[in-house]
Amino acid sequence: MSSPEPDAPPDALTGHPRQAGAPPDAADGSFLDRLSSDLPDLRVLTDPDETEAYRHDETPYLHPGRPLGVCFPTSTGQVQAIVRLAADHRVPLVPRGAGSGLSGGAIAVEGGLTLVMTGMDAILEIDAENLCAVVQPGVINAELGRAAGEHGLFYAPDPASYEWCTIGGNLAENSGGLRCVKYGVTRDAVLGLEVVLADGSVIRTGGKNVKDVLGYDLTHLFVGSEGTLGVITEATLRLLPMPSARLTLLCFFGTVREAGQAVATMTRDGLVPATLELLDAFTIRAVDAALHLGLDADAGAMLMVESDAGGTAAEAELELAARAAGACGATSIVRSADPAEADWLREARRRAHWSLEQAGVARMDDVGVPRRRVPEMLAAIERVAADQGMRIGVFGHAGDGNLHPTYVMDRDDPAAEARIDAARAAIYAAALELGGTVSGEHGTGVAKRGYLEAQRGGDAVRVMRAVKAALDPLGILNPGKVL
Amino acid sequence: MSSPEPDAPPDALTGHPRQAGAPPDAADGSFLDRLSSDLPDLRVLTDPDETEAYRHDETPYLHPGRPLGVCFPTSTGQVQAIVRLAADHRVPLVPRGAGSGLSGGAIAVEGGLTLVMTGMDAILEIDAENLCAVVQPGVINAELGRAAGEHGLFYAPDPASYEWCTIGGNLAENSGGLRCVKYGVTRDAVLGLEVVLADGSVIRTGGKNVKDVLGYDLTHLFVGSEGTLGVITEATLRLLPMPSARLTLLCFFGTVREAGQAVATMTRDGLVPATLELLDAFTIRAVDAALHLGLDADAGAMLMVESDAGGTAAEAELELAARAAGACGATSIVRSADPAEADWLREARRRAHWSLEQAGVARMDDVGVPRRRVPEMLAAIERVAADQGMRIGVFGHAGDGNLHPTYVMDRDDPAAEARIDAARAAIYAAALELGGTVSGEHGTGVAKRGYLEAQRGGDAVRVMRAVKAALDPLGILNPGKVL
Repeated sequence: MSSPEPDAPPDALTGHPRQAGAPPDAADGSFLDRLSSDLPDLRVLTDPDETEAYRHDETPYLHPGRPLGVCFPTSTGQVQAIVRLAADHRVPLVPRGAGSGLSGGAIAVEGGLTLVMTGMDAILEIDAENLCAVVQPGVINAELGRAAGEHGLFYAPDPASYEWCTIGGNLAENSGGLRCVKYGVTRDAVLGLEVVLADGSVIRTGGKNVKDVLGYDLTHLFVGSEGTLGVITEATLRLLPMPSARLTLLCFFGTVREAGQAVATMTRDGLVPATLELLDAFTIRAVDAALHLGLDADAGAMLMVESDAGGTAAEAELELAARAAGACGATSIVRSADPAEADWLREARRRAHWSLEQAGVARMDDVGVPRRRVPEMLAAIERVAADQGMRIGVFGHAGDGNLHPTYVMDRDDPAAEARIDAARAAIYAAALELGGTVSGEHGTGVAKRGYLEAQRGGDAVRVMRAVKAALDPLGILNPGKVL
Repeated sequence: MSSPEPDAPPDALTGHPRQAGAPPDAADGSFLDRLSSDLPDLRVLTDPDETEAYRHDETPYLHPGRPLGVCFPTSTGQVQAIVRLAADHRVPLVPRGAGSGLSGGAIAVEGGLTLVMTGMDAILEIDAENLCAVVQPGVINAELGRAAGEHGLFYAPDPASYEWCTIGGNLAENSGGLRCVKYGVTRDAVLGLEVVLADGSVIRTGGKNVKDVLGYDLTHLFVGSEGTLGVITEATLRLLPMPSARLTLLCFFGTVREAGQAVATMTRDGLVPATLELLDAFTIRAVDAALHLGLDADAGAMLMVESDAGGTAAEAELELAARAAGACGATSIVRSADPAEADWLREARRRAHWSLEQAGVARMDDVGVPRRRVPEMLAAIERVAADQGMRIGVFGHAGDGNLHPTYVMDRDDPAAEARIDAARAAIYAAALELGGTVSGEHGTGVAKRGYLEAQRGGDAVRVMRAVKAALDPLGILNPGKVL
């Protein structure tokens, strides 16, 4: 195994490597000329005022490159032609969906061409008899959910951005969400893919078979690879029978550590609720101030537990959860009165990051730990906040061990970036010390690639680089991301 | 992407490629000398009378090579040293567990060294609070199940050979089982691995985090790769809370197609039972003759449906199943009277292949189709049996679309191999025509590699070869398997 390319020099501001630069022959216009002559129907933007909207994702603190252009393919054939041309001209390609990503996986690369996949937004099939859907990558997550719902089915992965993020982006990042604790992440929902490779050839992996072991599992290699190994142009996704209506339990605690202890207890008790979300005091107050929900503003933490097990099983599940919360010192335990209120609470949880942003510049982070280490991780975050003298809100999918420490800084703090960098380094170190991960569900992108070797080890990264070099020998697919 | 090596010439008997031969410098004894001097504590067998027991798996119709030797590593460090030495001497390595495989993934390679991993059989940890186990590859599947059970937990994947197959073999083949319809296959149960690579370095993938998206997902690449990309020396596996006791329903039908229709109906109705197994008339009679269960010997087919949903949910699930069976023409529907009887029936189903073997030489095959195509696949198997004038028993995990057509031949039929080859070619063609797979859960090994390109397509196989070449550039890891 050989390392295909040395690391790019680090970005002075963020401590992460810069985007790979474009090769000399890309900027001479011949690539764009060929693109428009070969693909006259392809919409291409090159005016920087127009391409600007497609340079960023939800990582305003990162520094995207300036793209040669932005194009909007509408078919697999167009994607193939674009990739072949880019390979000939050594032009980097950046596939992207709605730009809701939180690790910079979709930010523009200097001298590259960005492929906005939102035009390939057809739900090709809801195959109710096989419990699956076949979709193009530009389909909005929530739209797939609604289409499945018309057949009494549901699509489980539900990132907070589900009303606007695309399935293609979800696949690229292996996105999580609130329902993962019971139903798994995006990877668990993927049965098959159509992928355009770096040489323009197109392959199909998997299909509609729920069991299929012939050859290597390429499907799961492409999921989460952020467009660095191929461009996903179609996906076959698992749907599930629509679960029963949810019952919701809210448990309030004096301290976040007690809430964390309750999460660990519920896990140990074998509870697999449909949702097990945590909000700390800071986040509760921010959510309540922004959305006026009447939450207990004096509480130190809150757990939201939901069951969709149906009937007596759901009652039993919440009873078990309430008992665990009580044993861990819950100050109050309330059942949500009606489904509309539960929907509202869940939406409030999804808007936690937005709510914290009302208090200043909020940067959401994303770490994970083995579930029983949640109390220790929460304690470590508190310690970092105290050490750095900064506010760090915490919320997240506690039932998965996946927490979102969110750094909240004054808008005019000139040292904000440096202080955030110090805090995240300390939080990542704590997560790794606990056997955790520096990215639970937000991907690697640009934001986390500097931590890849620390977590995975040099030899594992060498394997990843060897796989990358094998599939993309010219390095044109989303360079500077993941690796 | 480049193809690392041309296909080996086909084996005249089976139509599949022969094992790669050993390079000239392996057989001169220097490799074995170094092995014993470098690793004096390593048990090594070289006498052909002793190594014979480790040449085969459960594919007596395949033709293994003659190994240089068979060794029994007891630590990751020993495996590393063996791999490094083998790389120096270009000696092929074949890792194996109990040899229960059904596709030849573990059969010996000419001039190679077989690594019997059964000595690395420690359950290192049952981490009840994180719902996971850390095990060495030689642990028997059922022993892990029993150890988990002591903590009120269970390990879901349960191949029919669960009482003697190893976790390492399950990982290598991505094994399935009876419970997959609800709980997924081996891949779905793997959180992390320790793997010795082709250069002797050791990596860890994943860990105890249920959500972890940093870098490429190597875990799922190694699972199902049959030792061709690395040697798995440890695994972290997901455990689940022990489900409720099972309720069992047996549905008898006049024809196998009606049973298949009932499976499709149950799937469409959103039923996710813990078990949904099908036995055809031939298999029912064989099982009953061998085990004296008092099954309806006149039935054309039987479905075994189990629910572990607990309480009223389980009752509702079986009620739904019974209604679907009735609507599809079930001739009788009976509830199993007690748990012991259900265990007995499940064991009978697991012994279906063995029961068919009482009727002659039985070769179990393994195809999968999208679930609603089960009736069509069953019809195709009937057609092939009629066309070839042979007996083909069918049983399998119908709820997964995974069927085991089993060719039963007279013991003295000289044309048996040729007739089986013709039948399997016709059955695979039918499965692929229905969007299915030629291997639902038995792996690729040697038995199915000839069909890899037909199912996956040339470009996808090229990607697999590129991955193989990137991770094992010398081609020493289980050559001639999968690819």
